Amino acid sequence: MRESAGVRVRKTQRPKGLFITFEGIEGSGKTTQLLRAAELLRREGLPVVTTREPGGTSLGLQLRRLLLELPEPMDPAAELLLMFADRRQHLREGILPALEAGRIVLCDRYTDASRAYQGAGRKLGEELVDLLQENFAPLEPDRTYLLDCPVDSALARIAARPGGDRDRIEREGIAFHERVRTAYRKRARKEPKRFVVLDASASPDQVCADLMEDLEPFLEPFRKRAAR
Amino acid sequence: MRESAGVRVRKTQRPKGLFITFEGIEGSGKTTQLLRAAELLRREGLPVVTTREPGGTSLGLQLRRLLLELPEPMDPAAELLLMFADRRQHLREGILPALEAGRIVLCDRYTDASRAYQGAGRKLGEELVDLLQENFAPLEPDRTYLLDCPVDSALARIAARPGGDRDRIEREGIAFHERVRTAYRKRARKEPKRFVVLDASASPDQVCADLMEDLEPFLEPFRKRAAR
Repeated sequence: MRESAGVRVRKTQRPKGLFITFEGIEGSGKTTQLLRAAELLRREGLPVVTTREPGGTSLGLQLRRLLLELPEPMDPAAELLLMFADRRQHLREGILPALEAGRIVLCDRYTDASRAYQGAGRKLGEELVDLLQENFAPLEPDRTYLLDCPVDSALARIAARPGGDRDRIEREGIAFHERVRTAYRKRARKEPKRFVVLDASASPDQVCADLMEDLEPFLEPFRKRAAR
Repeated sequence: MRESAGVRVRKTQRPKGLFITFEGIEGSGKTTQLLRAAELLRREGLPVVTTREPGGTSLGLQLRRLLLELPEPMDPAAELLLMFADRRQHLREGILPALEAGRIVLCDRYTDASRAYQGAGRKLGEELVDLLQENFAPLEPDRTYLLDCPVDSALARIAARPGGDRDRIEREGIAFHERVRTAYRKRARKEPKRFVVLDASASPDQVCADLMEDLEPFLEPFRKRAAR
């Protein structure tokens, strides 16, 4: 893999840590599951870091606010560029240093989300996303959990959340979220070694159990290091 | 020229207006000259619009603040992506509608600035800038005025400005601004039909006179329309 302007992430030069991403439509429960997994790993004394996109850095927090709350219509390609600006800063400032320090990084959304939301949801197509990934954020996750459930049940969960206004993305129509879900599932079929699709309609305990079972083999080297 | 995700700017499909950009290092006087030109055109009753990058839209204003005031170091490629997010939104929301309405758009910095500041100043190289230009902001100016003067005299002008703290870019060292100036001059030599290099060390009246003389032939069709 080529060097991309300072972020060196050749596949043969993987950092020591573990990079796990959580993907899914709004209301799929991915954030809940990420936090549960983090808690279980922490209890074992493993070096875990949780983060998210957009919003994993100080720049990212401000971009997240812009992305979710801008009152006027945002050009879809401008939105995609902002997502990658956030990602690039996040890689440099957060993800790569944590991986190089040997940590387990659990990240709430990453490039697959750009492909699903901007590529499919906003109909920009995959080509622009691939181009930005290759040139600005070539690091791939070791494992990606896709929390998959029907759009109507996910939207019902969002509607049931206490007291929150819905943001610019959550206010999109059902067709938008269907395109996002379809794109996620398509990507998971395309990269079966990296993706694990979890049935997010199951109980949270069941989802958590399935996720931790899959994660198990990745944890051994960290347990050995933690035991030293 | 290919269509770029919704912003259609084939050279054979130019909008009716006139797109003029002003470039130069900090302190070169480009903003002053842009405003003077705008005033002269307005007095003639010509349909002129002034704008700037970053910051030509409501999204852009917030990005400008981030770009110029972020306290921690920004990844250079993240900075480049933010500049293009701003540019994309600016094209869609400001520049293209004005050109399609037949206006003369005077823009303070555009893609040449990304090439000079991020490409050369931040040493990202031209390739990433070209890639983003081609895919996200392919519209080229009809004319670009490069206000060129030695870095030390430009920096002296900035230092003499009343009461202003210098921003993140202005605080860069002399070597940075030298790289920016060199890149601007190189680009002007590469595209002599589009660029006009003005000696920004001359008096503001002289610079303005030279600029207006060059602009003259572009104005005829607008005068005819205004006279109708």
